[in-house]
Amino acid sequence: MAMPSSSRPSRDVLHNLATQLRIDSVRSTSAAGSGHPTTCLSAADIVAALFFAEMRFDPADPQHPEADRFVLSKGHAAPILYAAWAAAGAFPRDEVLKLRTIGSDLEGHPTPRLPFVDVATGSLGQGLPAAIGIALNARRIESDYRTYALLGDGECAEGSVWEAAEVAAHERLDNLCAIVDVNGLGQSRATQYEHDTDSFVRRFEAFGWWARSIDGHDMGQILAALDEARNVSGRPALIAARTLKGKGLAAIEGKPGWHGKALKKGEETDKAIAELEAQYVKTTDPPAAIRKPARRRAESAPADFVADMPAPSWALGDKVATREAFGPGLVALGGMDRRIVALDADVKNSTFSEAFEKFYPDRFIQSFIAEQAMVGVAMGLASRGAIPFPSTFACFLERASDFIRMAGISSLGVKLAGSHAGVSIGEDGPSQMALEDLAMARGVPNCTVLYPSDAVSAYRLVAAAAATPGPVYIRLGRPKTPVIYPSGETFPIGGSKTLRETSSDVVTVVAAGVTLFEALAAHDVLAKENVGIRVIDAYSVQPIDGATLVAAGRATGGRIITVEDHYAHGGLGDAVSEAVWDQAFRVKRLAVREIPRSGQPEELLERFGISSRAIVDAVRELLG
Amino acid sequence: MAMPSSSRPSRDVLHNLATQLRIDSVRSTSAAGSGHPTTCLSAADIVAALFFAEMRFDPADPQHPEADRFVLSKGHAAPILYAAWAAAGAFPRDEVLKLRTIGSDLEGHPTPRLPFVDVATGSLGQGLPAAIGIALNARRIESDYRTYALLGDGECAEGSVWEAAEVAAHERLDNLCAIVDVNGLGQSRATQYEHDTDSFVRRFEAFGWWARSIDGHDMGQILAALDEARNVSGRPALIAARTLKGKGLAAIEGKPGWHGKALKKGEETDKAIAELEAQYVKTTDPPAAIRKPARRRAESAPADFVADMPAPSWALGDKVATREAFGPGLVALGGMDRRIVALDADVKNSTFSEAFEKFYPDRFIQSFIAEQAMVGVAMGLASRGAIPFPSTFACFLERASDFIRMAGISSLGVKLAGSHAGVSIGEDGPSQMALEDLAMARGVPNCTVLYPSDAVSAYRLVAAAAATPGPVYIRLGRPKTPVIYPSGETFPIGGSKTLRETSSDVVTVVAAGVTLFEALAAHDVLAKENVGIRVIDAYSVQPIDGATLVAAGRATGGRIITVEDHYAHGGLGDAVSEAVWDQAFRVKRLAVREIPRSGQPEELLERFGISSRAIVDAVRELLG
Repeated sequence: MAMPSSSRPSRDVLHNLATQLRIDSVRSTSAAGSGHPTTCLSAADIVAALFFAEMRFDPADPQHPEADRFVLSKGHAAPILYAAWAAAGAFPRDEVLKLRTIGSDLEGHPTPRLPFVDVATGSLGQGLPAAIGIALNARRIESDYRTYALLGDGECAEGSVWEAAEVAAHERLDNLCAIVDVNGLGQSRATQYEHDTDSFVRRFEAFGWWARSIDGHDMGQILAALDEARNVSGRPALIAARTLKGKGLAAIEGKPGWHGKALKKGEETDKAIAELEAQYVKTTDPPAAIRKPARRRAESAPADFVADMPAPSWALGDKVATREAFGPGLVALGGMDRRIVALDADVKNSTFSEAFEKFYPDRFIQSFIAEQAMVGVAMGLASRGAIPFPSTFACFLERASDFIRMAGISSLGVKLAGSHAGVSIGEDGPSQMALEDLAMARGVPNCTVLYPSDAVSAYRLVAAAAATPGPVYIRLGRPKTPVIYPSGETFPIGGSKTLRETSSDVVTVVAAGVTLFEALAAHDVLAKENVGIRVIDAYSVQPIDGATLVAAGRATGGRIITVEDHYAHGGLGDAVSEAVWDQAFRVKRLAVREIPRSGQPEELLERFGISSRAIVDAVRELLG
Repeated sequence: MAMPSSSRPSRDVLHNLATQLRIDSVRSTSAAGSGHPTTCLSAADIVAALFFAEMRFDPADPQHPEADRFVLSKGHAAPILYAAWAAAGAFPRDEVLKLRTIGSDLEGHPTPRLPFVDVATGSLGQGLPAAIGIALNARRIESDYRTYALLGDGECAEGSVWEAAEVAAHERLDNLCAIVDVNGLGQSRATQYEHDTDSFVRRFEAFGWWARSIDGHDMGQILAALDEARNVSGRPALIAARTLKGKGLAAIEGKPGWHGKALKKGEETDKAIAELEAQYVKTTDPPAAIRKPARRRAESAPADFVADMPAPSWALGDKVATREAFGPGLVALGGMDRRIVALDADVKNSTFSEAFEKFYPDRFIQSFIAEQAMVGVAMGLASRGAIPFPSTFACFLERASDFIRMAGISSLGVKLAGSHAGVSIGEDGPSQMALEDLAMARGVPNCTVLYPSDAVSAYRLVAAAAATPGPVYIRLGRPKTPVIYPSGETFPIGGSKTLRETSSDVVTVVAAGVTLFEALAAHDVLAKENVGIRVIDAYSVQPIDGATLVAAGRATGGRIITVEDHYAHGGLGDAVSEAVWDQAFRVKRLAVREIPRSGQPEELLERFGISSRAIVDAVRELLG
């Protein structure tokens, strides 16, 4: 719980701290020669109140599990975040002068390279969803810590803010307080609401929040609003704070044209700092004393997910869709470790995450049809030690593409699962077919990308995802496919399975998911003609098993065919091609190369050139 | 303008039409064996009222520029859309029995393969932004047509709906009417608001809309609300209609568990149709007569953008960022053709689209920080003949990734421009660096992807984008680069420029954007050592100039190096690699391979392996 108002520092002390934050925001951005000082100045009183009169935290142990959390959703105000942690004693004040230099972790926008940052911000509209995940984590670990998020007014145009607003209200998150810094100025012009703080109150109230409008430079009003917010029950709280961009510098405050501009080194900066220093007030009040959380509780030992996973019950030859294996995989993990959380966007009966909800309803989060919120909440959860599995149709994960990008920047252990990959979904048509999801996931350089073809590998790879640090993406299919692996088979990350191999193979065919069965069928057709092809299941698309691919390519005359139910760009074909780049092989990519349409799955595999027949033709072309 | 209420058909006639739409929705989905009949049944009365009592359109000429527009945002209700157009006479009623078959354009979700569909839907939350673009187009062509969008209640959880709500209110779009079909049931469970239609009214009102709650099965209330909505001034209108999913089938209506399920062929379907047929009422009222728009006006001849573009004023050697050339390019196009529209997400002073706003403020649309809305509005505009250029930082275009995917499915001429590509932006850090945008754009198979390196090519490629059908993405850089092309140079789509070439070249280096200058610098370093490298500017990344690349590779011993300010996946390297796949070349990709950080641009090019030094090293490695 936050600081009781009785032990708060005086308003004079808080005002002086706000002034110090303003000064350091100007000093650091001027030293860097770039950055956003004016957006820091509007927020200084709010940040001073939060850090020195409201929050419970330990500057020497910012990741303490019981500490209140602060998410700077308006990430371009990074300098004031750094100034606040410096003022709290986390590092020496003059470190802020290294802002934005390559040798410092005080980057232009905050990232978790810094121990006091939970999630990277700077892509606006992501802080509130993450803060909701952080607030939900308090429930998971049964802590009374509170979560605070500071938003810009301009960023409230982002739909993700309203997705988040819905989720927070639905979850009745009264341990969450969002503050909007309504300085009325965007980057290039006034925001659409300028200083109409009531418009924020109306909108958040309509979404089910408690909300209040204040003067964001009146310390008394700030503290009173934080008090009220803390006492709201059953609803999240929103404070819309009217502020001036550049507050404290008379020539700049409230003026357009100052977004993202550092003051010039020398006279301009010196005068500004002198102007701010003159705003210190004399006081003999006791200095601010930060209230620290209690001692850390002992944590339970984490599970060894891969080793402890119970064997699945499917037998070889059973017909089971990989998406059908996802639910049982999640349930098995959930039983092993309370860190496992599942999130859904109203397709739990298609992804089979509903199995997890039945067993662990308290760790199942329904975002409804709001994929950005789902992934953003998962990012917040992951930042606090949970292992979240958000899942939906793979194509709709692309709705959260920018969140996934930022999850990569934060190196967060978000375990994404996308079902209904490719044209093999059939009749629903192109809007429901993910054909660029491998490219999206591979575009996050620290993201592990898994693409199982049968139920056993899908089930085992769900465990591998939980055990692997950082973001993971699991691609799941709609059609039932035969079980081809024994229930005890292991699937190391970065590995592959060579399913067909003779010493006289002339072409290597690399596949994953539904196309693996097309490759196996092509193998049988060609075998009758005494043409041997090596068939490799590339279930780990990133990292990919380069050594096996190189060896197979060498053994088969440098001829490789990749086949994937995905567009030709950024997927399996490109992954294989790059893995063997220095071998001077020929890598022919079979993939979907035009916008597909509705039809039966088999018709579509055939029409878009990824069927067994297409593979047979490609083998002949490479040989001929 | 829509139909005057005096000439409307009687309620009995409309009821019978709604019943026919219900019957055809059941017939078609049962024939297909899949689809979403119950979501059609909830909307039937609303759709009947819109098509036969409200809208002005011509079934024989659905693309008539003066026709009212209907966007089925809840695209999974496609069968009722098809039934309505059949009932209006656009095609024979029994065609609906071909639903979802590979030979029919009546796909599982609507696409513009059908002449009466403007934008593909099926990814929820996209119809309203598109409808706003369509409504804004009425202003552009000075037409009084009205735009109607039918949304599901569940899809209102999508943030894009609220981004759109903001834009529509800001634009005071009183020619737009959105109807939410509040059937209370999502796919897997009840929606969070169930039948609380007032919650929709409250939220839209808070966003500045006129809004009203009705019984969506009471034809009198539907017609009255449409009348009221038509008379609203200065605000968009929202009708929240309480409905029952499966309405008309007693055993199903209002029951969960029926989402996306066709009735079984045979008895189940036959009984349902009999039950619906029994709901026809006897009437001697005159049948519905569709009111058609007036004769088409003559259209002005389109400009020849590429040929007519005035020459830019930059001289060789001038230092100009490619983003700085974007604004003048837009302005030149805007002067040629009124179809050109620019859209911004509050970064017009960084992308330089503000130049267009100064000249053509009536064709400049500010979405504020709402990239999904910006791209969605552009999709709507493009569907009605405009040539929209939405632009923002390239990384934030990824926020609209799923919209861009759907723009591809619709083959819409949305001309996206993304600035601040890559680590070369410097100090702002990774959240502001687009490093996966080429992969995103290339993942749309019909998207042209352009990546100019200097101001002249950027300016010329803006014209090429306007002239090229379908979606286009232009990647723009932040740093100033020297002008290397004469102002009259031409840049055909699918072309490239070979900038350094001798008969003794030993390696081909393919670059674009800022890395082209690193390649030129590497060339000069190696030339001093008598090592010749061929340098190719691959300004057209998709389609890429395969013939030139193959010839260059052959001339340089099969050695190719690609270098891009982008992650290694899905970008220039993969494009080049695939273009030469059958040549058994070695294609070494220099690209960013880890999450970058803040620093100076040159420091970052060096640190992440895409500097001239890295190229020199790679050349030496390839030469062994």
